[in-house]
Amino acid sequence: MSEYDAVIVGAGVIGLSTACHIKQKNPSLRVLVVDKFNAAGQGSTAKSMSAFRCLFSSRVNYLLSDSSVDFYGYVQKELGVDLKLLMVGYLWLLSIDDYGEMTPILRNLEAANNLKYMEYEADELASRLGVIVHLAGDEEAELMSLKDVYKGIFIPKAGIVDADCVVKFYEEEFLKLGGEIRYGVKVEDLIAEPCKPLGILGEPFFWQESRVSGVKTDCGIIKAKKTILAAGAWIPQLLDTVGVECFIKPKKRQVFAVEAEKPLLRRLLFTESFNSVGCMPFTILPKPRVLVRPFPVEEVFWLSYADDFPRAFKLEEDPQPEKNFYQYGIYQVLVKYFPQFKDCRPYSSFAGLYEINTMDGHPVVFEEKDLIVVGGASGSGIMKADAIGRIAAALYNGEDYAFLYGDRKFRVSDLSIKGRRVEPEKLQI
Amino acid sequence: MSEYDAVIVGAGVIGLSTACHIKQKNPSLRVLVVDKFNAAGQGSTAKSMSAFRCLFSSRVNYLLSDSSVDFYGYVQKELGVDLKLLMVGYLWLLSIDDYGEMTPILRNLEAANNLKYMEYEADELASRLGVIVHLAGDEEAELMSLKDVYKGIFIPKAGIVDADCVVKFYEEEFLKLGGEIRYGVKVEDLIAEPCKPLGILGEPFFWQESRVSGVKTDCGIIKAKKTILAAGAWIPQLLDTVGVECFIKPKKRQVFAVEAEKPLLRRLLFTESFNSVGCMPFTILPKPRVLVRPFPVEEVFWLSYADDFPRAFKLEEDPQPEKNFYQYGIYQVLVKYFPQFKDCRPYSSFAGLYEINTMDGHPVVFEEKDLIVVGGASGSGIMKADAIGRIAAALYNGEDYAFLYGDRKFRVSDLSIKGRRVEPEKLQI
Repeated sequence: MSEYDAVIVGAGVIGLSTACHIKQKNPSLRVLVVDKFNAAGQGSTAKSMSAFRCLFSSRVNYLLSDSSVDFYGYVQKELGVDLKLLMVGYLWLLSIDDYGEMTPILRNLEAANNLKYMEYEADELASRLGVIVHLAGDEEAELMSLKDVYKGIFIPKAGIVDADCVVKFYEEEFLKLGGEIRYGVKVEDLIAEPCKPLGILGEPFFWQESRVSGVKTDCGIIKAKKTILAAGAWIPQLLDTVGVECFIKPKKRQVFAVEAEKPLLRRLLFTESFNSVGCMPFTILPKPRVLVRPFPVEEVFWLSYADDFPRAFKLEEDPQPEKNFYQYGIYQVLVKYFPQFKDCRPYSSFAGLYEINTMDGHPVVFEEKDLIVVGGASGSGIMKADAIGRIAAALYNGEDYAFLYGDRKFRVSDLSIKGRRVEPEKLQI
Repeated sequence: MSEYDAVIVGAGVIGLSTACHIKQKNPSLRVLVVDKFNAAGQGSTAKSMSAFRCLFSSRVNYLLSDSSVDFYGYVQKELGVDLKLLMVGYLWLLSIDDYGEMTPILRNLEAANNLKYMEYEADELASRLGVIVHLAGDEEAELMSLKDVYKGIFIPKAGIVDADCVVKFYEEEFLKLGGEIRYGVKVEDLIAEPCKPLGILGEPFFWQESRVSGVKTDCGIIKAKKTILAAGAWIPQLLDTVGVECFIKPKKRQVFAVEAEKPLLRRLLFTESFNSVGCMPFTILPKPRVLVRPFPVEEVFWLSYADDFPRAFKLEEDPQPEKNFYQYGIYQVLVKYFPQFKDCRPYSSFAGLYEINTMDGHPVVFEEKDLIVVGGASGSGIMKADAIGRIAAALYNGEDYAFLYGDRKFRVSDLSIKGRRVEPEKLQI
């Protein structure tokens, strides 16, 4: 059994972007990707909202997403690979308090990164979208502590993409470069061995220096010079077996799909004048931030909400959406702002697992004992995957800096555990 | 079913110290402690090495342990409660590299806290303890990368105590003050409820503000104004159910007991002139730091080592010591420095769970949604329990500062998650 130069655990968008960038930098190395599913992107990637924005309060999150989105744009426009990327924009509906929090972040992004955005008055939004902006007198809205829409902020450089197309793009590139992939192979354990084996049963002993030398799978052992964990929400479970901390926790995230059948809903979905697509932007309601993602090609809305306390940190092999989460949760809030959804029930729904970084909401990319961990994208894996892959590849090559798409220099250790340098993110949604 | 003012989960040394200090500050409140075991301190407290030192590199760790140890001294001397506390001191055997790391820490503690310590030359240690200080030419020692002893540092304000006596002291005090304890009650879940219940099935919904309102146990539900988690290594499992992060991971720690039967071992155990007890100090070998804890009353040594990578983070109900961990691990290192242990096998052994704080090795004391978390003592729970209990009680009372024994002011938020202010600890052993 020969040793690979790198084995990457996880063929989701993060794993395949990482694989692709490693192979691009090292064409002659043997790089293997393994995944328990039978195709690329079948884990949490497939359960994503597949939307992107560059509106983050932290410099690092901004850089990761902005450069990744630029790259996807380049792939679609210059390379001619259809990622089904549509620049529908993001529309934040803000209460007066939300607006107070958002304003300094926007000013900062405008000054530092020349971020473009537009402000809309509540009345203008009401007439364009048919959104209810004044909830005064609505007892139910009051009970739910829902707030009036004070303003709207529209970000044009944002939109939707097809997660599967992005994953397939990386998969094809990786294979073209000579990378290997094995699907249907489940990693059960990390293998820890002494750096200098003595051949004594029970190694490694604590007085030996030891390292991760590969993975144990249900199809046998795979040895590698470097083992790269990009298994999303499954990362902490694997890392626990060798006592390495990554500050990642799994959490369920549910998405409900509602058809734009009724005329009022069709009209909402195909709201003109915000973007050149001719559909409503990805819309974020005032706190609690219920999300409305347009899916114009399918003529549906995707509705979601990332709930915090008391939603469990829980690893589930097949997380299920909960009917009541829509009916007593999302629907109740949604219909107060968008009465167009009255009596609408989802025709479909799905649930995936967030891999939340509980320290600061940023990804982690670090190496310990020949094990590289790439994860913790905290629900924005697709919109940051290209940058994260480049950073992981730079770490793999022992470089201090990665160059993100658009030649943007990024210090690799900024996403590590020990040399971490990120500001807490204020705009997690 | 009436609501308690506070329910504390865990009757270990941290839980009972917390209970005691809360009740002392609030004599009229109804405070309940529950524990799955049938007596106090039967979890990881019972599996502790029961030793204490004030030698920590971080200001916070120093304060927590120094004030707690002062308090235990006061309890034994002034209150006349026998905690079996013996000031045997700590002796660090240091390689030249270890010494280089230790020196600035000692200088700093001496300047800031007037810490007393003595330096011993290697030859002096060899003659007093019969320790081998030169390993040159020993192939096995070289294979294990063991280093010569360059110097020894002796800390007089350090020693051993009986964990059970400390726990019983807090238990009695708490009961005297009118506190309630229920043993044999296992907490299965935290209860999350809306702050303003509407009486609708499925509450809390995400648009409601919610809180932890008590615990579900195998003997029924217990409601409380504040729920206090002091369940050591079991804390993260309970917190995960409501999606709260505490940065604590469980890890097994093993202790092996060897009788001081042979004359050479007896002579080692009862080494004179380091302390007034007339026994060897708690001794730390050069890296990897194998620990030798004297137990003069029982005429035994306790031997231990806190292994890092690749020891799993793993929660076990009944962790077991591993024979090979002694035989191929501890023994191999120990016998190179202390040949007196040649051919000695343990007559007994036990294993407990560390509750490691993976951020910075300090305890956490924080509140979220009426839930107070007190834990992460990272293997130094007993030597810090009094201070931690006082800080938790101050947090319970909504005070910004706690007053540790000896009137030392401590900012409660320094051990929180959000306002955390601690330096990474360099002397974890």
